[in-house]
Amino acid sequence: MCHCKRIEKIQAKLRRMKIDALLVTQPHNRRYLSGYTPADHDIGESSGVLLILARRPPLLLTDFRFHIQAEREAKDIEIMLYPKGLLTLLTGLLPDLAISCLAFESHYTLHSAAGKMQAMADKIGITLLPVNGMVEEMRLIKSEEEIDKLRRSVLLNEQVFQQTYQTIVPGQTEIDIALALESTMRRLGAESPSFDTIVATGRRSALPHAVPGPVTIEENQPLMIDMGLILDGYCSDMTRTFVPGKSDSRYLEIHRLVRKAQQAATNKIRAGVSAAAVDKVARSIISDAGYGQYFGHALGHGVGLAVHEGPRLSSRDRKHLQAGMIVTIEPGIYLPDWGGVRLENMAVVREDGCEILNNDTTWLDI
Amino acid sequence: MCHCKRIEKIQAKLRRMKIDALLVTQPHNRRYLSGYTPADHDIGESSGVLLILARRPPLLLTDFRFHIQAEREAKDIEIMLYPKGLLTLLTGLLPDLAISCLAFESHYTLHSAAGKMQAMADKIGITLLPVNGMVEEMRLIKSEEEIDKLRRSVLLNEQVFQQTYQTIVPGQTEIDIALALESTMRRLGAESPSFDTIVATGRRSALPHAVPGPVTIEENQPLMIDMGLILDGYCSDMTRTFVPGKSDSRYLEIHRLVRKAQQAATNKIRAGVSAAAVDKVARSIISDAGYGQYFGHALGHGVGLAVHEGPRLSSRDRKHLQAGMIVTIEPGIYLPDWGGVRLENMAVVREDGCEILNNDTTWLDI
Repeated sequence: MCHCKRIEKIQAKLRRMKIDALLVTQPHNRRYLSGYTPADHDIGESSGVLLILARRPPLLLTDFRFHIQAEREAKDIEIMLYPKGLLTLLTGLLPDLAISCLAFESHYTLHSAAGKMQAMADKIGITLLPVNGMVEEMRLIKSEEEIDKLRRSVLLNEQVFQQTYQTIVPGQTEIDIALALESTMRRLGAESPSFDTIVATGRRSALPHAVPGPVTIEENQPLMIDMGLILDGYCSDMTRTFVPGKSDSRYLEIHRLVRKAQQAATNKIRAGVSAAAVDKVARSIISDAGYGQYFGHALGHGVGLAVHEGPRLSSRDRKHLQAGMIVTIEPGIYLPDWGGVRLENMAVVREDGCEILNNDTTWLDI
Repeated sequence: MCHCKRIEKIQAKLRRMKIDALLVTQPHNRRYLSGYTPADHDIGESSGVLLILARRPPLLLTDFRFHIQAEREAKDIEIMLYPKGLLTLLTGLLPDLAISCLAFESHYTLHSAAGKMQAMADKIGITLLPVNGMVEEMRLIKSEEEIDKLRRSVLLNEQVFQQTYQTIVPGQTEIDIALALESTMRRLGAESPSFDTIVATGRRSALPHAVPGPVTIEENQPLMIDMGLILDGYCSDMTRTFVPGKSDSRYLEIHRLVRKAQQAATNKIRAGVSAAAVDKVARSIISDAGYGQYFGHALGHGVGLAVHEGPRLSSRDRKHLQAGMIVTIEPGIYLPDWGGVRLENMAVVREDGCEILNNDTTWLDI
């Protein structure tokens, strides 16, 4: 795919802001603008930075370990290596390029690294400008090509769930099922899970941060599975809750209520509606039934190259949804002494409604 | 285990430096000083911070999601929640505690977060001081209790390798073996891998950053496995290279050379020797045999709560080793058109030598 349009857009933004160059350090932003895929081992161990220049083609700066990969993936972009470190390279390069104002991503630069960069800027006499979310803002609205990738990620995730669901047998533990799901993801071609898979049985399904344990799945009790994978860089995120064995009337009541809240939110979503209004329609249904205090998180979040990104479907977010945004719709009810039910789909915001990316199998409408 | 001695040590350091309090944000440092185990989802999504006070007991600040876990794990430490965010809590708390100089971990604080903290500090009239590696420096030297945990982590990792090694059959792919290793880790009680398992067959074993692929293991060719796990918080890291099938004379030559370099470095390590001198003894053996340019990385690194930490066994590091440090010893030779051999053990530096934590099975001395 061609990244030139995205680069042109950010270049135009830089020129409007009188910035000569932007140092892109955040790995998803770097990938979005160049096609170069590596994650950072951690924020202190970078796989490279993309230097977007307001008036020239960009440069990808990295070290010898990533040279071959950079050339293969960032096809149209000139690669430069920094055998003596990034700052040494920039000290020579920025004056050559006549950069006098350099912006950097304040939300993905360590305070200590920014301090060293400031010393370099002082030395060569340039201005260093912290900016926030400039590329993330572009990433909010997905192209149809991106939506296709997200759809394939969601459908593969569904397939992994269905295949593994067939193999659940009495006596298995949460860890067994989590491992089966994650192995199936990799075997069916996912790069990796998009987050640590959650499998929680019985009362444990009421814990907001359940980590799969060596705990045998309880029959006739809720089983919650929250899972996602990365395919071609794009994340999926889905939650299913069901009962291995027989559901009792309480389970059915709560599951139906959560499903009703999810469907109401789904019907509400379209371009122009505020995020808070979508959260509210789901929350009211749960509150009106007396469970309001047991739905302790926001209704949803954006998904893309990152599994958590903008927008947020939260009661505090007054921003309006726009066509091409992706959101999860994931109401839940968590009763500490009983367990929880959460149902999560992913949807594309369209002008006149929304498009659910999941198969959204009706057997879950028990 | 009791964290009070560690806290007393850091408190004494703060008093000497005329600092009233240190905000510990780095997750391993937080765990080291308090016993509170969660990782951060990412650096922008903290599971809490530890406020070390120079003249009073510390406080663990977190949010409602981690309340139960914090109380259970950080037993002797008072927990405070921040329903309206950390900065809002600190705005009230710091003046109450008469803090006038607050240090923060510059190497684990985003530039954007530091900016907001500075605004808070200006508002309440306190001095904000960036510090670097204050807790990491303490973590360099392991107690015997920590060494026991590292030993158990290494031995479990060996056990996982041995069990999985028995099950390797023709036709398996790199991914099959990586998944088998990671599943076995979890089944045998590891918290998780300590890094993404590397399984690389044939020429792919010469890639410095091999990611397991859907590639069938080649018979009679090198197979490199670099793997580690986390047990009770402590990491292991081990590399084994061998040939499924028959080794040819070239493989034997290179394997024996790498093993010789590893043994020479092992014999060199003891308290008081410089890191560079240990790297040199291994590197000379490989260089003298004509393969110097194919050993492109440092000889080793520290391991503890983090899989990569200080010290570094590198030609550029003139620091002297101290008793209680942990290092990997991992020479390697990587020939682009043939493949690579790397052998990696973990050792404790002692006054009079070093203690290898691995079983270091002799069948590898082919």
